[in-house]
Amino acid sequence: MGNKNFYCIIMAGGMGRRFWPYSRKNLPKQFLDFFGCGETLLRQTYNRYKKIIPPENIFVTTYCDYKDLVCEQLPELDPSQIFIEEERRNTAPSLAHASHLIHKMNPNATIVISPSDQLILKMDEFERSILEGLEFASTSGKLVNLGIKPTRPDTNYGYIQIEDDGSEGIFHKVKTFVEKPEADFAEVFVQSNEFFWNSGIFIWHIDTILKAFHINMSEICPKLESESPDFSSCPNISIDSSIMEKSDNVYLQVCHFGWADIGSWESLYDALPKDKEKNVIINSNTMLYNSENNIVLMPEDKLAVIDGLEGYLVAEHENVLLICKKDDQKAIRKYVNDVEMKFGEKYS
Amino acid sequence: MGNKNFYCIIMAGGMGRRFWPYSRKNLPKQFLDFFGCGETLLRQTYNRYKKIIPPENIFVTTYCDYKDLVCEQLPELDPSQIFIEEERRNTAPSLAHASHLIHKMNPNATIVISPSDQLILKMDEFERSILEGLEFASTSGKLVNLGIKPTRPDTNYGYIQIEDDGSEGIFHKVKTFVEKPEADFAEVFVQSNEFFWNSGIFIWHIDTILKAFHINMSEICPKLESESPDFSSCPNISIDSSIMEKSDNVYLQVCHFGWADIGSWESLYDALPKDKEKNVIINSNTMLYNSENNIVLMPEDKLAVIDGLEGYLVAEHENVLLICKKDDQKAIRKYVNDVEMKFGEKYS
Repeated sequence: MGNKNFYCIIMAGGMGRRFWPYSRKNLPKQFLDFFGCGETLLRQTYNRYKKIIPPENIFVTTYCDYKDLVCEQLPELDPSQIFIEEERRNTAPSLAHASHLIHKMNPNATIVISPSDQLILKMDEFERSILEGLEFASTSGKLVNLGIKPTRPDTNYGYIQIEDDGSEGIFHKVKTFVEKPEADFAEVFVQSNEFFWNSGIFIWHIDTILKAFHINMSEICPKLESESPDFSSCPNISIDSSIMEKSDNVYLQVCHFGWADIGSWESLYDALPKDKEKNVIINSNTMLYNSENNIVLMPEDKLAVIDGLEGYLVAEHENVLLICKKDDQKAIRKYVNDVEMKFGEKYS
Repeated sequence: MGNKNFYCIIMAGGMGRRFWPYSRKNLPKQFLDFFGCGETLLRQTYNRYKKIIPPENIFVTTYCDYKDLVCEQLPELDPSQIFIEEERRNTAPSLAHASHLIHKMNPNATIVISPSDQLILKMDEFERSILEGLEFASTSGKLVNLGIKPTRPDTNYGYIQIEDDGSEGIFHKVKTFVEKPEADFAEVFVQSNEFFWNSGIFIWHIDTILKAFHINMSEICPKLESESPDFSSCPNISIDSSIMEKSDNVYLQVCHFGWADIGSWESLYDALPKDKEKNVIINSNTMLYNSENNIVLMPEDKLAVIDGLEGYLVAEHENVLLICKKDDQKAIRKYVNDVEMKFGEKYS
């Protein structure tokens, strides 16, 4: 089943630092069963794609330290389906290398690029959208970026503005990209009908993306087009800034599949169902008193009794407990840095 | 060494509920190494008395469930030195039974009664005071209650008012007992020179206390004056309310040995040294940001990162994390009850 020209690359090399302490250096969030549903985020992602794409066409890119974790969680993968980054260089170098390899396997491939740490609630809609996007990208010569109609002025997501062509269609030419906006801008974006959340899911034909790499990253392509790519001499650049924001053939596909980026505690809070005091309790035993707008994640079998907290994150994982305001995301990176300065790798 | 007529009874039967979750039903606080100093509170208490009282004259009363814990922590005790309460009935029935047994061993005994969960900072002063009290009680026919000059208006301690006889002596006739006062009263108490904290340490000759038991608890004494005392049919009463508050031969001994009752998180907070933001960190790895007036106790090897808390208790022990205002002690009893209603014994 599935069109033999359809491929998928799941990106699973991130450190998930913003989810510390749940996400740890040696076990980032994509390898964890975040919701206690019995499947890790990576496994959930793989399962979503294997319904619509031939399993032998699904690839995973990851950082060398995580290779064993990927093998363990996706034992059906052949080692050749795992692309290893020997050095962390963000998404662009890794995808350039993967694209080169897939081109050698099938010069008519059309590929979905997917993060490994997202929440998708409406599976039927998702399958329909991905197939629609693959069909469109396979013949149009466009770089397709899946966009989500915003439901709230989230300042943690990237936004994409489309050109106002008056059409109600699914695919729209992209006008511009806006990274995490200020709150007042985000409000305006949601009011308008021109802005969409950037899902981080891309679809393109192999020729389209290789052409874009050669136009925008010509100097580093040769380093990545070999069996032993030289990641160490590549710059640290994302596919968004090196390709998507620079190309003029980028199209947004409007999607409605119940999407959330599990990118930060705050976005997770926004995405999940709340109790009547607006607390989000993730798979944890809790007793809350006089507490509102909190997000709580505790280890299995541990009980948290909380009285008098408002707007906090309480997250415990392995040897770390973190209690902080849930809206101050940037702080988490500071905590991790400070903890590493003081204690070394023990808690990071 | 030590006067052969001097005895000690260490009371180690409490549940320490106000210290939940650190203190647990199957392992109350007296059996824990609270300060991570290598000795449990019970062991510390025993060590204090064995310097001044013959070891064979030191007894421990405890609840039946804790007998093994006492044996384990005080292996030098002969089983006959442990008095078991088969039913919890507070301090009076247990001490009546213990007094009866000690009287049979030595009708000229003078006994110190001591809680097993206190902090004593000045050992020399402590030894001097105990010996002074024993000497006084051995001949005076008084019930001696050790009192501490209050240094702050603590509303969690019991207070004792002495009769103003104008003397500067060590022993003063007691006028009245005041349980945990309101804050404004406590202020007045500290200002006056008539009020002292009730340390819960008592000293009396065996004849004096047996006489007091027979006057105030005549109906239950027979049940406790046998080898197999019938605790179940005794009322639940403290030595304070049944004897000390009713007798007219109670004397307060003024002491200065750096005393704190480890009776609640709040009293512990008051007793311990604070960092410059007035946080008390008990034997825990922490990184605190924008946080003041908190008390934190974490398991060994666990790190707590806390940002933006003021006036909270953060205590984790075994399978429970508690976060609440540190000044609302009564709440802890409610939490434990609620937790038992919801989860049974698992977390209590």
